[in-house]
Amino acid sequence: MNICIVLYPDFETLDVFGPVEILGKLSDSKITYYAQNGGLISSRDGAQILSRSFSELKIEACDILLIPGGQGSRQEIHNQSLIKALRQFAFQAKYVLTVCTGSALLAKTGLLDGRQATSNKRAFAFAESSGRQVKWVSRARWVVDGKFYTSSGVSAGMDMVLGFIADVFGQSLAEQIAFSIEYYWQQDKLHDDFCRHENEHHPFP
Amino acid sequence: MNICIVLYPDFETLDVFGPVEILGKLSDSKITYYAQNGGLISSRDGAQILSRSFSELKIEACDILLIPGGQGSRQEIHNQSLIKALRQFAFQAKYVLTVCTGSALLAKTGLLDGRQATSNKRAFAFAESSGRQVKWVSRARWVVDGKFYTSSGVSAGMDMVLGFIADVFGQSLAEQIAFSIEYYWQQDKLHDDFCRHENEHHPFP
Repeated sequence: MNICIVLYPDFETLDVFGPVEILGKLSDSKITYYAQNGGLISSRDGAQILSRSFSELKIEACDILLIPGGQGSRQEIHNQSLIKALRQFAFQAKYVLTVCTGSALLAKTGLLDGRQATSNKRAFAFAESSGRQVKWVSRARWVVDGKFYTSSGVSAGMDMVLGFIADVFGQSLAEQIAFSIEYYWQQDKLHDDFCRHENEHHPFP
Repeated sequence: MNICIVLYPDFETLDVFGPVEILGKLSDSKITYYAQNGGLISSRDGAQILSRSFSELKIEACDILLIPGGQGSRQEIHNQSLIKALRQFAFQAKYVLTVCTGSALLAKTGLLDGRQATSNKRAFAFAESSGRQVKWVSRARWVVDGKFYTSSGVSAGMDMVLGFIADVFGQSLAEQIAFSIEYYWQQDKLHDDFCRHENEHHPFP
């Protein structure tokens, strides 16, 4: 499995590294980090990660494409060449996984039009505004529609990735990975304790 | 708060970035990444993180020192100059937090002698062998002894860091942060569902 991680300045740290911790446990997986122009990309928490540039990404080479959310997504949503590139990569990828406001970036490509998706409950209006044709689900830990997996905020990405592994590789492997990292996996994608409308008044991230 | 993160080759990704995601939510926190010789350090999942060298770390500058675990700790435990440096940093730091086999590295410094501590249940024999004078607790999500917080494997680090924040900054802030990242916080440090002795036969990491 070729796993391609999209980075951009001010991405939410755990949106990337929660899923990466889990996806890295798949046998024969290769994780590569990409950003529009490559180089060092800083997460919201000041971790500087080395990335390759989009031009080095062979679009047919992504089995799994992961798009994180974060404060930076509010800038990148206006970055037309990034959105255009994401559209290509996401169109070709076998599976596309987004965490938090990563679904806003994916929605902007148009590929979620007519599909169900979710996002961070504290940034839901932002997500909705990025794709008016998307069937946004306001109460869900994560949502699956075809090859597109979209999760709610930050930690929900880990539950979604385990759910993805259960769907594609079997429940037993997902449970084994969760156990190996001593993780309490919330397995029910419809159970969402973080959907409260007052959160809209405390936008995050 | 000056938060100093120790990196070494093949550290476990989430051991660092779970805690970082949470500690980064403290106001006025500054997170800096250090490795023995600085430069790019690769996590187990191939993320290359830029670090400063130990020689740039003013030992009095660490309010919180975080030591992750991971496969690489099995090499670093024999790295005498790294252990010597960790001893200095941990001695001076206001608080020392370890995740997974990070406690084995800390134990090797001697600073845990006579104190209670825990580690990953799948690497417990390794941890025990790194400090025979440590009072190892085999069933605990995390253990607090003075300024030393040691957690069980990988994901347990997030629960511990939230517990640390509750102890030092108050329960309400810890709950607020957990909610903001949509995280199901397992708050009971004595409750450990991952302590099974048969795990010793499947060493991880």
